[in-house]
Amino acid sequence: MSGNTFGKIFKITTWGESHGAAVGVVVDGVPSGIPLKEKDIQKELDRRRPGKAAVSTPREERDKVHILSGVFGEKTLGTPISMLVQNIDVDSEPYEAVKSKPRPGHADLTYWLKYGRMDYRGGGRASGRETVGRVAGGAIAKKILGQHGVEILGHTIEAAGVKVGRKVKVEEIRENVEKNSMRCADPEVAERMKKKVLEAEKQGDSTGGVVEIRSLNVPPGLGEPVFEKLDAEISKALMSIGAVKGVEIGLGFGAAERLGSEMIDEFEVESGKIVSKTNRAGGILGGISTGMPIVARIAVKPPSSISKPTKTVNLETMENTELKLKGRFDPNICPRIVPVAESMVALVLADHMLRSGKFNPDHFGGAK
Amino acid sequence: MSGNTFGKIFKITTWGESHGAAVGVVVDGVPSGIPLKEKDIQKELDRRRPGKAAVSTPREERDKVHILSGVFGEKTLGTPISMLVQNIDVDSEPYEAVKSKPRPGHADLTYWLKYGRMDYRGGGRASGRETVGRVAGGAIAKKILGQHGVEILGHTIEAAGVKVGRKVKVEEIRENVEKNSMRCADPEVAERMKKKVLEAEKQGDSTGGVVEIRSLNVPPGLGEPVFEKLDAEISKALMSIGAVKGVEIGLGFGAAERLGSEMIDEFEVESGKIVSKTNRAGGILGGISTGMPIVARIAVKPPSSISKPTKTVNLETMENTELKLKGRFDPNICPRIVPVAESMVALVLADHMLRSGKFNPDHFGGAK
Amino acid sequence: MSGNTFGKIFKITTWGESHGAAVGVVVDGVPSGIPLKEKDIQKELDRRRPGKAAVSTPREERDKVHILSGVFGEKTLGTPISMLVQNIDVDSEPYEAVKSKPRPGHADLTYWLKYGRMDYRGGGRASGRETVGRVAGGAIAKKILGQHGVEILGHTIEAAGVKVGRKVKVEEIRENVEKNSMRCADPEVAERMKKKVLEAEKQGDSTGGVVEIRSLNVPPGLGEPVFEKLDAEISKALMSIGAVKGVEIGLGFGAAERLGSEMIDEFEVESGKIVSKTNRAGGILGGISTGMPIVARIAVKPPSSISKPTKTVNLETMENTELKLKGRFDPNICPRIVPVAESMVALVLADHMLRSGKFNPDHFGGAK
Amino acid sequence: MSGNTFGKIFKITTWGESHGAAVGVVVDGVPSGIPLKEKDIQKELDRRRPGKAAVSTPREERDKVHILSGVFGEKTLGTPISMLVQNIDVDSEPYEAVKSKPRPGHADLTYWLKYGRMDYRGGGRASGRETVGRVAGGAIAKKILGQHGVEILGHTIEAAGVKVGRKVKVEEIRENVEKNSMRCADPEVAERMKKKVLEAEKQGDSTGGVVEIRSLNVPPGLGEPVFEKLDAEISKALMSIGAVKGVEIGLGFGAAERLGSEMIDEFEVESGKIVSKTNRAGGILGGISTGMPIVARIAVKPPSSISKPTKTVNLETMENTELKLKGRFDPNICPRIVPVAESMVALVLADHMLRSGKFNPDHFGGAK
Repeated sequence: MSGNTFGKIFKITTWGESHGAAVGVVVDGVPSGIPLKEKDIQKELDRRRPGKAAVSTPREERDKVHILSGVFGEKTLGTPISMLVQNIDVDSEPYEAVKSKPRPGHADLTYWLKYGRMDYRGGGRASGRETVGRVAGGAIAKKILGQHGVEILGHTIEAAGVKVGRKVKVEEIRENVEKNSMRCADPEVAERMKKKVLEAEKQGDSTGGVVEIRSLNVPPGLGEPVFEKLDAEISKALMSIGAVKGVEIGLGFGAAERLGSEMIDEFEVESGKIVSKTNRAGGILGGISTGMPIVARIAVKPPSSISKPTKTVNLETMENTELKLKGRFDPNICPRIVPVAESMVALVLADHMLRSGKFNPDHFGGAK
Repeated sequence: MSGNTFGKIFKITTWGESHGAAVGVVVDGVPSGIPLKEKDIQKELDRRRPGKAAVSTPREERDKVHILSGVFGEKTLGTPISMLVQNIDVDSEPYEAVKSKPRPGHADLTYWLKYGRMDYRGGGRASGRETVGRVAGGAIAKKILGQHGVEILGHTIEAAGVKVGRKVKVEEIRENVEKNSMRCADPEVAERMKKKVLEAEKQGDSTGGVVEIRSLNVPPGLGEPVFEKLDAEISKALMSIGAVKGVEIGLGFGAAERLGSEMIDEFEVESGKIVSKTNRAGGILGGISTGMPIVARIAVKPPSSISKPTKTVNLETMENTELKLKGRFDPNICPRIVPVAESMVALVLADHMLRSGKFNPDHFGGAK
Repeated sequence: MSGNTFGKIFKITTWGESHGAAVGVVVDGVPSGIPLKEKDIQKELDRRRPGKAAVSTPREERDKVHILSGVFGEKTLGTPISMLVQNIDVDSEPYEAVKSKPRPGHADLTYWLKYGRMDYRGGGRASGRETVGRVAGGAIAKKILGQHGVEILGHTIEAAGVKVGRKVKVEEIRENVEKNSMRCADPEVAERMKKKVLEAEKQGDSTGGVVEIRSLNVPPGLGEPVFEKLDAEISKALMSIGAVKGVEIGLGFGAAERLGSEMIDEFEVESGKIVSKTNRAGGILGGISTGMPIVARIAVKPPSSISKPTKTVNLETMENTELKLKGRFDPNICPRIVPVAESMVALVLADHMLRSGKFNPDHFGGAK
Repeated sequence: MSGNTFGKIFKITTWGESHGAAVGVVVDGVPSGIPLKEKDIQKELDRRRPGKAAVSTPREERDKVHILSGVFGEKTLGTPISMLVQNIDVDSEPYEAVKSKPRPGHADLTYWLKYGRMDYRGGGRASGRETVGRVAGGAIAKKILGQHGVEILGHTIEAAGVKVGRKVKVEEIRENVEKNSMRCADPEVAERMKKKVLEAEKQGDSTGGVVEIRSLNVPPGLGEPVFEKLDAEISKALMSIGAVKGVEIGLGFGAAERLGSEMIDEFEVESGKIVSKTNRAGGILGGISTGMPIVARIAVKPPSSISKPTKTVNLETMENTELKLKGRFDPNICPRIVPVAESMVALVLADHMLRSGKFNPDHFGGAK
């Protein structure tokens, strides 16, 4: 029951079904005095929107955000900010066919088991559409973090089996990610990814990948041991995204094969500051930020909506049946997950910055 | 601030530093009427204790648990259960040497940055010693789950680069895990793991690995979308364990390389029940349990305490210095993490069973 | 920061400023399968609306509720229910005059002190308008409670110094409360209350009173000692209403003058059931419901908006000034607080019924 | 389930039954660097201890506190502080008589109804003994508040029908409260109270009263609208104390009989500061502290343990029976509630000071 709120001090509560009237979010705990306009939110929503890009679904979502509260004179009031995006251009008709046929890989069956019913139209609450609220809330978190110099950069490092295979520079991410449909920092690799993704799609299939999120200039000292460690909170945040099946920090699973001497980051003094030349820990030690970049990676499964026929059951007759989904779907979700994953990390960092008391949560920078 | 409580309805709050007077836990939300004795707890604590096993530290911890409240007439009252284990046989002397020298890979530096001070003796709060409270609380969670037929099995599937490399049977885990010092389900592999671990130790180094936790007979319908999904909560729980750098569910990172048709679990009707022949999702769809085994794996980094000298800084003089840790340490922590990881998963499942209202949280089975 | 959510399992998050675009609420934790229509909500919203009644403000609020999510096929889905009421017919112009002049008795000054700014139009977030969200959420709580036979009855027992002065029967409350503008169970007393209220209004002043809320057929066993006792939660819920300055349960402050033997409710067996002839405790013992009616009373202060001139300061010039509010205001808020107070009690009871596991929170009565 | 934790950032979790091994508390969220010794806690515990005073029970409680974690070098670490007081000199024998006979006015019956069992020895968890943990946690809260100049003063203003009947000066409270067994600020009234209390006791009866708690020098801006308003949180905190049946802030129930013009506190500028000559609101407007003293009063019921025989039922035979409690009991609990009520208010204020970000919760005043 009631798992639709995320955060402790900086909190978002998302709501809405894919084919309902609208989707939205209430953001509570936003400090007062932050300049905020709808376009600050719209900018991020447009990044999650399915573009014309070959690798994403053609459904034309016009995700126009409306800020309904919490802002006065284009500055935040310190009161909850309610935002809403209407669901338009939704065609529920095709879903009548799957009404009693849970789609394998989707949440249809578990919602039906848990709630005794479900909104089968477009996955209802379990639809990727729900991330509109996450991204809208994340946009505010990014604004707060940005004013403190924190930057969050997501990019696709693997898709359809094609890997970047090297550590890309921050500049490459900033420069290239929004320029290709895979949101990959390496344009050449992006081309090969896209090729493989489309090949699979031609076979009526979908593909997965890996997305990396780097957070730069995070102040040291964020994270609350022992259960609300920064890496634990980031893991929960990222794993709560629909298609994510794995999360790792720093060397992650690679750490399992290292020796202790190859895993630790040694400390040195450099011009009066404590530094380490390596960042194998991924910016977090003992659940607390070190000040180094926080590096997280997520495993993104291939979308479960494919045009290939799949076996399922008819919940009314309890007989085996086959499912043949019509229409086109995201053949690879990595590029669209990038802004969502960035948002989730931003929400965790903003919440912990406020909890750390590194600034006054009531007056943002004492702004008036 | 205040991150020492885990859970929403079934909650644990752990406390204690490695070299303080004691470590302990308060477990709140335990239904009344559950038969509970100290030996139920002691049994699990003994599993996390460093044994005589070649691969674990010789420090003789006599972790005798004391139940101080919440139990009357050997049955739970529904009131908080406070448990305590005294810290005896602790020798803080060797730590005087590291007083101002943060140990690389440990939380010394980040605690110092965050709190402006730290209990440097044995890592203080950041010590693995803190898991005593988790395991004690987990023992109660396991008891509740056990009465509902839920079984949680942890085992080492990789250590020091040696992998089991196959899907072991549940029976193998039950049969073999407690019989070898690596807690590996395959005795032959366990031998090779141990050999590699000891080789590295001879070089004054440590090794990592991967631990898998399977939860059997979990009722369908557990997990609260969209942020308190079962996989999100399990990820947070496992990532909050000191040495863990990665978490995956089902195929996890393997899913990134699959095609959609190779990732989904198709449904069939078998003798009136909905089943799927595969469990690639790892027992969770849309953040809700399906009823299939829940399969989680964690990446365990090599312990940061090694006898090889490491570079660090002196926080008082702010000069570079070298650290040479005396004594012996866990050369590989996987076997000791097994009961801790099982406990964290048990805590999540017990909390969600209570939240799901699948039984009366006040009277356990209406017990009187 | 972030105090806009109420409840633990059955949760509401309200948002909106008095003169913003809209006010609303997100209700999370609502079991699935509950029949729900907009008219179920509208009915309660209409009760809090300022009527034409002589004792309430003439501002014509057309509070048309819109359910935006969580309901499909006129039944709840178990997902968050988002509801919205637009702010129409708002005239902010008169408030320009008070822009820098905090109104005594109102939250203007404290919001300005806390947040460094405020939406001075109609009190912004601190306006009674915020209770729209509470009542909308309370309507769903009442629906759940109603299906379990729980009935919540609020009524005015004192206004403008005129007291009912006797224990009215439940039937009188059901029968008369909605028939007079004071929401008093005794029509004759209501007339005298109204007369006194209007007299004071003629003097440009306002009056207060006392409202009682009785909850009938509450199952025994609700409430979570020791900090989330049912009376503690009800007190918080009621004291969070703007004009409330005091809360009492059962004999309340009267208990201070009783002897122990005059305060306790003795137990007897009557046709196999444990009963007590008195209910001095007000239906709660040790923070847990007994099964007897839960009786709470609140002290309602006179509205701070009066036409009499009041002294205040100009925040820009920091000079003393005088405030002369134009327009008409609620001369007595008791009748309008009745549905709000009922809603807050309903929210507490619904939350605790779900927490008590007295029914499955996922399927409401296993409804499909 | 799980209602034993209080607070959001500064949190206490209490545990223990009256006749169990011990009672205690875990305090989480305490900033690091606060000087803390056991005697800081002991001092407050001694105030709640039943003294030799004529009006309190003779049971000799030696409440020696032990700090088990969170403090190193006599300064707080920022980690949870676990404190324990053993239950010694407990004689459970007399309670065998009430084993199946719920004591009217006590929580015996409701615990039995809720949990299906209870620790009948001395009320178990529902005993006033549980407040040991509250007072120990409150002592730390007071320490934090004290370093910010906040002072919390509790005193008895009515007992056994005898009222102080005037607003006592702060100096009188500081001067006299600890000097008389009623903890009354007026020594002469204290004598009359005591006389009445003992008269009732001779009749085998008990008496109630009213306690006032004033909080001085509270910074403006504390409290989180709209549900976590400072007055709402204080009400919950105070109502969670066993014997409390009512709570009021400022004029409280007196406000019900005032006119608006007699209730508001007008603002003036005095030597550049905004002040008000009256404090009818009791230091809180719109749920946010104004900076004026916060004034709360609680109705304290007469203790339910009296030597007069009372009617009850035998839960085994379900027959009517009579209860004749042996031994002596607190004839009036007001003086012992004073430190408990102070502690609860201190916990709320400390939590909200930390939430307000008015100082860094990690480093207390940046202490090292």
